[in-house]
Amino acid sequence: MTERTKITLDESEIPRQWYNMVPDLPAPPPPPLHPGTLQPPGPQDLAPLFATELIRQEVATDSYIDIPAEVLDVYRLWRPTPLYRAHRLEKALNTPARIYYKYEGVSPAGSHKPNTAVPQAYYNATEGVKRLTSETGAGQWGSALAFACAQYGIDCEIWMVRASYDQKPYRRTMMETWGATVHASPSRATKAGADVLALHPDSPGSLGIAISEAVEAAGGGADTKYTLGSVLNHVLLHQTVIGEEALAQFAAAGESTPDLIVGCTGGGSNFAGLFFPFLREKLAGRANPVIRAVEPAAAPSFTRGVYAYDFADIAGFTPLLKMHTLGHDFIPDPVHAGGLRYHGMSPLLSHMYELGLFEAVAKQQRECFAAAVTFARAEGIIPAPEPTHALAAVIDEAKRCTESGEQKVILTALCGHGHFDMAAYERYLSGEMEDFELSQERIDEALTRLPQVP
Amino acid sequence: MTERTKITLDESEIPRQWYNMVPDLPAPPPPPLHPGTLQPPGPQDLAPLFATELIRQEVATDSYIDIPAEVLDVYRLWRPTPLYRAHRLEKALNTPARIYYKYEGVSPAGSHKPNTAVPQAYYNATEGVKRLTSETGAGQWGSALAFACAQYGIDCEIWMVRASYDQKPYRRTMMETWGATVHASPSRATKAGADVLALHPDSPGSLGIAISEAVEAAGGGADTKYTLGSVLNHVLLHQTVIGEEALAQFAAAGESTPDLIVGCTGGGSNFAGLFFPFLREKLAGRANPVIRAVEPAAAPSFTRGVYAYDFADIAGFTPLLKMHTLGHDFIPDPVHAGGLRYHGMSPLLSHMYELGLFEAVAKQQRECFAAAVTFARAEGIIPAPEPTHALAAVIDEAKRCTESGEQKVILTALCGHGHFDMAAYERYLSGEMEDFELSQERIDEALTRLPQVP
Repeated sequence: MTERTKITLDESEIPRQWYNMVPDLPAPPPPPLHPGTLQPPGPQDLAPLFATELIRQEVATDSYIDIPAEVLDVYRLWRPTPLYRAHRLEKALNTPARIYYKYEGVSPAGSHKPNTAVPQAYYNATEGVKRLTSETGAGQWGSALAFACAQYGIDCEIWMVRASYDQKPYRRTMMETWGATVHASPSRATKAGADVLALHPDSPGSLGIAISEAVEAAGGGADTKYTLGSVLNHVLLHQTVIGEEALAQFAAAGESTPDLIVGCTGGGSNFAGLFFPFLREKLAGRANPVIRAVEPAAAPSFTRGVYAYDFADIAGFTPLLKMHTLGHDFIPDPVHAGGLRYHGMSPLLSHMYELGLFEAVAKQQRECFAAAVTFARAEGIIPAPEPTHALAAVIDEAKRCTESGEQKVILTALCGHGHFDMAAYERYLSGEMEDFELSQERIDEALTRLPQVP
Repeated sequence: MTERTKITLDESEIPRQWYNMVPDLPAPPPPPLHPGTLQPPGPQDLAPLFATELIRQEVATDSYIDIPAEVLDVYRLWRPTPLYRAHRLEKALNTPARIYYKYEGVSPAGSHKPNTAVPQAYYNATEGVKRLTSETGAGQWGSALAFACAQYGIDCEIWMVRASYDQKPYRRTMMETWGATVHASPSRATKAGADVLALHPDSPGSLGIAISEAVEAAGGGADTKYTLGSVLNHVLLHQTVIGEEALAQFAAAGESTPDLIVGCTGGGSNFAGLFFPFLREKLAGRANPVIRAVEPAAAPSFTRGVYAYDFADIAGFTPLLKMHTLGHDFIPDPVHAGGLRYHGMSPLLSHMYELGLFEAVAKQQRECFAAAVTFARAEGIIPAPEPTHALAAVIDEAKRCTESGEQKVILTALCGHGHFDMAAYERYLSGEMEDFELSQERIDEALTRLPQVP
């Protein structure tokens, strides 16, 4: 055996603190705004929906926040996650680049989502909440929350977009195995859902409708709260365990810091979780990675959206967030990377993109699946559709290194496995997968309905 | 955090040798017999089907066999696998028992099968074989072989039982993602398959038919060989990396050796892989575990079969193996644990059972799925249907400890995850899963067709 393939850490090396990027930025991100008053919402505006501690973390100015022992006790079921050196992929690409991937698919739900689902369930449980609601599209977030709620003995109620509910019954069963209740959305369990069904009895649903239902259901009483699996600051905060571990693993492997960090972006949490700790090092002059987001060409908020105040949901229930957006009622074409089909972007990441702290590219899905198959045959792991976007960009860069002879060190986030996405692989392998061209007219049209903020 | 949950080893601690149980037994196992001559087959009888090195390992008398560097290089993609202390399950059961599980679901294919698929593909590749054939029922073995063949650049052709092919398209796509060709069996690609289709155009297939097709296809030329994923000595040998690692992990955790080792048995390889190294220690007076096999009540070869020479396949193509059998044309009821639906048992394990080296119990599937849901809600991991049998027996014992106050140390093999088996969970959770009563008449009837061996 040559150099190490799998750099593992002992469970005693799980980070004890989450890293808050905000205080280290050259300028603070613009605040959210209440859509009525156009003033920043206070804690009292968010308290009916979110646990108090999560609201506190959302606006925290501390650089580090302690991870509670009861959260660490669940994290250690799968954390620290392995950092892999992709020896076999490098060989397949004949590249002098050294490729590393941080693999989050070892979690029970199969992605990075439990990193935030677990603390969200924990804080709610400690504050006396008996039931959490949320929405899920492809099912990754719903699975993670169902698992997390089972750990702390609280109920979990998920609104799953009808199209996914019908197409991905196994994700639904996974949530039910962990004890969650799963509704197809639109449902008759909420007024928001019933209103949609009255107009469109056969509605396939959308993430926007599902959010509206979960938010409405959480408003019903003090013992029920709502949770969100991406976009918000506290979610990105919780995901920094990924990058903190990767930093320790690079040190353990005696490897220099990465020359390039690549991650896929939907709401942005897995990408942020990986690179925030490395950016801290860069801002302190201890590392100098190029940082690159990869988004789907079907939902290119960074590369083709505008930076403006917009709603996080279709119905306009949420505060206004300043972010890269394609318009809150823009519906991305049905690419298989359901976790990236979002009109907007994390406000914190959007702010940082404006500051020039990282770059972004967009990829079509067939190129991504080609990269995924190359990766799977070399490394064994079959990736979820979302991180195939990052893999496609990694392979691009590795091939450039083959031509230039550069021995770049590349780090990427392999944020989940594709065990529940094999139908997408079937379509790719059978030649039936399509790419979607997104016209500028469609984007411009959706942007005409941006809320007016002076 | 209290005591460790996840006992990991560094990749430098992957075992360097497989352990051969045979020389340490008080008596050697009876040889296989050629069905025509009733004499033990020589290497020349097996050479058309199997790689030379695998035939050598099948009859090896060395206690240890070196693992080639090229196999270790692939093993380290997922090995060493974690040993978990089931703190949260113990708490849910309120038991003083200390429960450990060795988790093989972290392999790319999601089970223990790659432990033998990788060396089988490697030895065949080094001997100039260009194509491997095999059969698969539920898809675990076929997936593992497809992955292994991709690692060494050889072709892989799998006959998948038609019923599974139709019901589990995602396992099939997984094999295709790794580059394998998958046939629904019975197929028109072989005479054996075509003969069945001529009589039964709508045949759902069976493992016996699929074996016949894969064996026939391997007979076509010197560059094609056949592989088997369980039952044979060399398969059990390769699986001993599981138990060797677990021994090292018990030592690393400062834990005493187990009082009880529990594993599920279909062909027997995952169970053998876990307990052989512990039994070596027991025979040497360094440990004293009770060892318990758990088989499905629908295929109870140990507990209700006879110990006799029989064919390993329905068609009678294989040598005669002395084993616990329900009769080679006995078709188990359609329980969800497809990997345990086998009429026979590893001849080596059968011999050892006769020697009294371990005990066996049988379980109905609803009890097993109840155990699986308890396990999943406590520990996060959703088990494959096969190891739920072992988990049910572990929970039995843990509850006995709750009553007696005994602090037994229990070790089990969690040989795979259930990500491709969620339909079974759906049936269980919806109350539609059935248990099957197996009448003595059905067993007796199948046993009337045992081959006559004086």
